[in-house]
Amino acid sequence: GYPCFSKAIMSSSGKGSYFIESRDDIEAAMNAAIYETRGSGERAIIEEYIPFNTEVTELAVRHLDEDGNIVTTFPKPVGHYQIDGDYHSSWQSPNIEEYLPYDVNDIGKSVEKDPELAKEAERKIYDAARRITDELGGVGVFGCELFVRVRDGKVEVYGNECAPRPHDTGMVTYISHPQGFNEGGLHVRAITGLPVPARIENGYRLFDPLMPAASHVIISPAQGFDPMYKGLFDAMSVQGTNIQLFGKPLAYHSGWIVEERMGIALAMGADAFDAKRKAEVAAHKILIRTATDREWRGQEETRMHVAV
Amino acid sequence: GYPCFSKAIMSSSGKGSYFIESRDDIEAAMNAAIYETRGSGERAIIEEYIPFNTEVTELAVRHLDEDGNIVTTFPKPVGHYQIDGDYHSSWQSPNIEEYLPYDVNDIGKSVEKDPELAKEAERKIYDAARRITDELGGVGVFGCELFVRVRDGKVEVYGNECAPRPHDTGMVTYISHPQGFNEGGLHVRAITGLPVPARIENGYRLFDPLMPAASHVIISPAQGFDPMYKGLFDAMSVQGTNIQLFGKPLAYHSGWIVEERMGIALAMGADAFDAKRKAEVAAHKILIRTATDREWRGQEETRMHVAV
Repeated sequence: GYPCFSKAIMSSSGKGSYFIESRDDIEAAMNAAIYETRGSGERAIIEEYIPFNTEVTELAVRHLDEDGNIVTTFPKPVGHYQIDGDYHSSWQSPNIEEYLPYDVNDIGKSVEKDPELAKEAERKIYDAARRITDELGGVGVFGCELFVRVRDGKVEVYGNECAPRPHDTGMVTYISHPQGFNEGGLHVRAITGLPVPARIENGYRLFDPLMPAASHVIISPAQGFDPMYKGLFDAMSVQGTNIQLFGKPLAYHSGWIVEERMGIALAMGADAFDAKRKAEVAAHKILIRTATDREWRGQEETRMHVAV
Repeated sequence: GYPCFSKAIMSSSGKGSYFIESRDDIEAAMNAAIYETRGSGERAIIEEYIPFNTEVTELAVRHLDEDGNIVTTFPKPVGHYQIDGDYHSSWQSPNIEEYLPYDVNDIGKSVEKDPELAKEAERKIYDAARRITDELGGVGVFGCELFVRVRDGKVEVYGNECAPRPHDTGMVTYISHPQGFNEGGLHVRAITGLPVPARIENGYRLFDPLMPAASHVIISPAQGFDPMYKGLFDAMSVQGTNIQLFGKPLAYHSGWIVEERMGIALAMGADAFDAKRKAEVAAHKILIRTATDREWRGQEETRMHVAV
């Protein structure tokens, strides 16, 4: 039935997805699913349209335990939002009632937190991630994108897509997790057969972040080769913030490709909201120019921001 | 006067030092100071013998502030002990009264903590590190080894030596500090002119660890080339522990060179004592052999241990 979504078999960041309102959209949707896919795309997925409150990434880690059996360890769910289908900010906290199961736009507002509902959401997120990753098999970090909806006072969790590897929204773990245990470290441990120590609670193997933290993308406002950066001193001067630049040789700003993510800002905070705000501020202090587009500019995108 | 110590102009790990009890020791001491030095050693240092309670490393960071002036930021002092003149274990905690200014051997025993004396020790450690590094000049992390002594209810701090770079005992910051802010990260920030955010307290710029943590050396019990490791799974299975191997091509066990440090175990703990104990246990779970010395063995050194 309508509305529904087309989706590429293999994709990311919303490429190959198309919102189908009626029969007239089917041809365009199928073309998007086929031509925007990664790899070959002779088939497409059609999915039900699901209105949801918030989206999370569960970075489920499949790995060997001391007996050589594959088990799943669950870091705390990563909250995030997208702008134009692409990840813009993500966050994680030991206290998930700060960001679950509420609407993204409510985070930080004085909504009444519901620890019971948060606990239910957390459990259902782990269960959904386990079902998806058990089906996929293998070891490593799996970035499971899940929709969370509250209906009639109950939490519903739906699978969106799953990346069988560390996930862009999971880069927040480069500040929220202990040194050596970010999503990259957890992935290396899992695929090399090294242990992933966990806290056991109600039968779940859990991996806790050290503190509330957030990431925010640094999108290029410039186009061309040899990108240069300014404002690092300013951005890195706030305690608990850090900037990671990807060292890309080219920057895109507009055109046939999505605006280019050149790096991320990371921030610790008193809570997820505070960290989110600090990461936004730090990311927007970075100025970029290229060899051919020589004016220093910061990114202009502030939709869904809380601070800038 | 006697007793005193000879010391090489440039050295580390006690090489070139000699305990001089009387005039008869002078020739041997001078020879040690000259031949065991790093670089040329035509002169030697003679130092007073100072009995002390404990030794710490202050990882003072000299760097630019937002106005372009050189300032000094002080991470919490790193406690440690040596065996045969070489670093064996180190620790750091947000609560330094856990390990200062008490004797190394008292850490973890039910000695009465003295927060006032700890505060005095902390302040005098920062002051001593500042005097030493102001004299040396430049930017970066300076590993200032300091002796701490309590006499007549007052804390005395003496300079021992200073490494104008990250320090081996400071490897504990690879678990105690936030990601990206270990002693290597702080050094890179300082020498590239990037900021080192600090908490200001009583006029001191301070950098706090996230939690109590400790490091413990992994010494080779084997000799030869192509060292191999076993027991990693076991050592890394305890929550909050991590193993860092240095990837050295050769292992020494005895002879003309000090026993070879092949890596370190890192551990977080409820307090410095707990972390120290966990790091010891993890380090001793690593078994090593070489291409020519093929029996798997763990390190045997347990002097000054609390757990193994």
